[in-house]
Amino acid sequence: MRRGPALPRRTLLQGGLTLAGTGAAAAATPGAPLAIPEWTREQGASVLAAPYGSPSPHERGVVRRPRRSAVFPQTLSCNTPLQHLHGIITPNGLHFIRDHAGTPDVDPAQHRLVVHGMVARPLIFTMDDLLRFPSVSRLHFLECAGNTPFWRTGAIKATWTAQDTHGLLSCAEWTGVRLADVLAEVGVQPGAAWLLAEGADAAALTRSVPLEKALDDAILAYAQNGERLRPEQGYPLRLLLPGYEGNTNIKWLRRIKLGDAPWETREETSRYTELQPDGRARQFGFVMEVKSVITHPSGGEALGAGYCEISGLAWSGRGRIRRVEVSTDGGATWRDAALQAPVLDSCLTRFRLPWHWQGEALVLQSRATDETGAVQPTRAALVGKQGEHAEYHYNAIHAWRVAADGQVSVAL
Amino acid sequence: MRRGPALPRRTLLQGGLTLAGTGAAAAATPGAPLAIPEWTREQGASVLAAPYGSPSPHERGVVRRPRRSAVFPQTLSCNTPLQHLHGIITPNGLHFIRDHAGTPDVDPAQHRLVVHGMVARPLIFTMDDLLRFPSVSRLHFLECAGNTPFWRTGAIKATWTAQDTHGLLSCAEWTGVRLADVLAEVGVQPGAAWLLAEGADAAALTRSVPLEKALDDAILAYAQNGERLRPEQGYPLRLLLPGYEGNTNIKWLRRIKLGDAPWETREETSRYTELQPDGRARQFGFVMEVKSVITHPSGGEALGAGYCEISGLAWSGRGRIRRVEVSTDGGATWRDAALQAPVLDSCLTRFRLPWHWQGEALVLQSRATDETGAVQPTRAALVGKQGEHAEYHYNAIHAWRVAADGQVSVAL
Repeated sequence: MRRGPALPRRTLLQGGLTLAGTGAAAAATPGAPLAIPEWTREQGASVLAAPYGSPSPHERGVVRRPRRSAVFPQTLSCNTPLQHLHGIITPNGLHFIRDHAGTPDVDPAQHRLVVHGMVARPLIFTMDDLLRFPSVSRLHFLECAGNTPFWRTGAIKATWTAQDTHGLLSCAEWTGVRLADVLAEVGVQPGAAWLLAEGADAAALTRSVPLEKALDDAILAYAQNGERLRPEQGYPLRLLLPGYEGNTNIKWLRRIKLGDAPWETREETSRYTELQPDGRARQFGFVMEVKSVITHPSGGEALGAGYCEISGLAWSGRGRIRRVEVSTDGGATWRDAALQAPVLDSCLTRFRLPWHWQGEALVLQSRATDETGAVQPTRAALVGKQGEHAEYHYNAIHAWRVAADGQVSVAL
Repeated sequence: MRRGPALPRRTLLQGGLTLAGTGAAAAATPGAPLAIPEWTREQGASVLAAPYGSPSPHERGVVRRPRRSAVFPQTLSCNTPLQHLHGIITPNGLHFIRDHAGTPDVDPAQHRLVVHGMVARPLIFTMDDLLRFPSVSRLHFLECAGNTPFWRTGAIKATWTAQDTHGLLSCAEWTGVRLADVLAEVGVQPGAAWLLAEGADAAALTRSVPLEKALDDAILAYAQNGERLRPEQGYPLRLLLPGYEGNTNIKWLRRIKLGDAPWETREETSRYTELQPDGRARQFGFVMEVKSVITHPSGGEALGAGYCEISGLAWSGRGRIRRVEVSTDGGATWRDAALQAPVLDSCLTRFRLPWHWQGEALVLQSRATDETGAVQPTRAALVGKQGEHAEYHYNAIHAWRVAADGQVSVAL
């Protein structure tokens, strides 16, 4: 039953709140009833026509932004509209999507998971088998390794929104079976050190994962925010590796093979490696490093003078967020934002800072620190270290420019 | 990076898990690849056709169960399918619904909230005004006061599922404005002790709420699980009173009036009062008391012998859940279930207990204790105290009967 800090009333009034009898509310004076709107005058609709329902038609602009592949038109990446969301949960209809061969229509009654390789007893599991295992539920973010394509200055557009810059990022409550329990059932052979996870989509996406991670906190997930996985999220079964880059969380999971070395699949050789300045590529940079973004105000918004709550999201694949600082002067000074409870391991954390914008041009930034002490680097430090030919794991401090007219855009 | 308790392997194998080369998996032998299913042989679908998406067609049975009013056919109660859900979040498409005049189509640009009565400065707020206030996000359950209609033995059906018995219950992450901040803005007059909240639906639903609650943790909510409220949940604005009975969480909120006494509206005189054995009615029993239900196994399921994880939900309007005990022998003995973190104030808590069903007929029960020390009563104790003419706030220990053939039904 905590209360937040009291709001300075003067700030609010300066922020343009409508007083009765003035402005937009001119029709209503204190003491006189509000006009009765049309929707109060007759019975409303019944939801029986569409029992699952949908958001209000007035929110039809709040959708994922799809980007097709020129080569494979059914292959998509779809960004979450972070600038329109509140709190930390992403509703399943807005969770980001990245697939390599479209969304297969998998029949759960026919789906099988085989676990084989360096195991004592290779086993084939039906979905009913997996549903009988002990279950676990956890709130975790997922982020595509290619989120925030800011390595090369020339490719960045000032008009990008938070959906464009950071929208391959979402967060849900995942429920499933601990992979460790399934591996205990098949019996891991001595010497096994890696596993291969394979999807049942037409890309048969495969990634090598260290056995240590599998035994630590990996989940074979079948539910997302209470209901079964959406088809585009891997229905009926996906791998969930808390804090690991999105593509390793294999969707439509059909096969796990144990071995003593990684398999050097396409997705860990030609893709999802980090090209270093010396021309060598770093493999297996699984963990998504500490990162944050201000979602309000953010790119594409037109800010009005007065009170404004700065709000955003912070996350780290290495544990909990410890601190988020915000600068409203281009990085000269920083203030601590409040972190909304609960603050959880490898989960989005909502941060907020009260602010008053007085109409001046400025640059807004957020800088997150995780519980390991890792701090978001500046763009100059990150690009200086990795070079402009890197593709993935961009986690530098993000900056929004607020112009004197209130327009917000990407700052570099 | 916690791990749960290790699972006894023998238990799992007895539970009917499919070994390679036997039973349903006869086509696959260790070392031979799984057959390639049809959905791996060609590109999958693109989500572009329906960007917001929907659950898999294979899950079409997982929907809310609507019950119409005979008098007002657009008025509904729709129960959440608890037996099909996992974790604690209810996806917005499955959140329970109770309305008194259907779902109005409110235009957020035209919607107004007036705050008046015993205030220093009556004010009218647009949605844009409210969105500029500081925001707060919290995970809370909502439960209809009439959930679990078990007061009169004759009305109970043995065939009821958990959706039928407890489905006017859901849980979401709510984001909005602290009502206390809005009240600070209008200035509460000395002597004010209650507020009236009024909805913009055709029922113009009105309830009196103690000012103390409004100043404590009440929220004017505009978002639910990240996105704006669904129309049937009060779009664009609802009152959220953590732990209070559902109907007080006024949807389509248009008016708050402060006064020194309750208004004695229809919904707190002819409805939502507790008829006591002496013929008197108790008013303003706002808080939903400690309660729990086992959702697996539950009514309508056919249980197979072997390992079974007992899983369910516990909640209390008075704070956090401290303990859930489960009995598999009709209440003779009780064992502590594990509580899934995070365990939050006035929020659903998922509990789990490993169990092995050996094919005997028995009765399953769960008993929750909250942080105030309140324990769920037995049905005999609750009905003995309140009588069979009570209508609301039934929170007794719930019992499922498991027959020798595995069929699960309501036990009384």
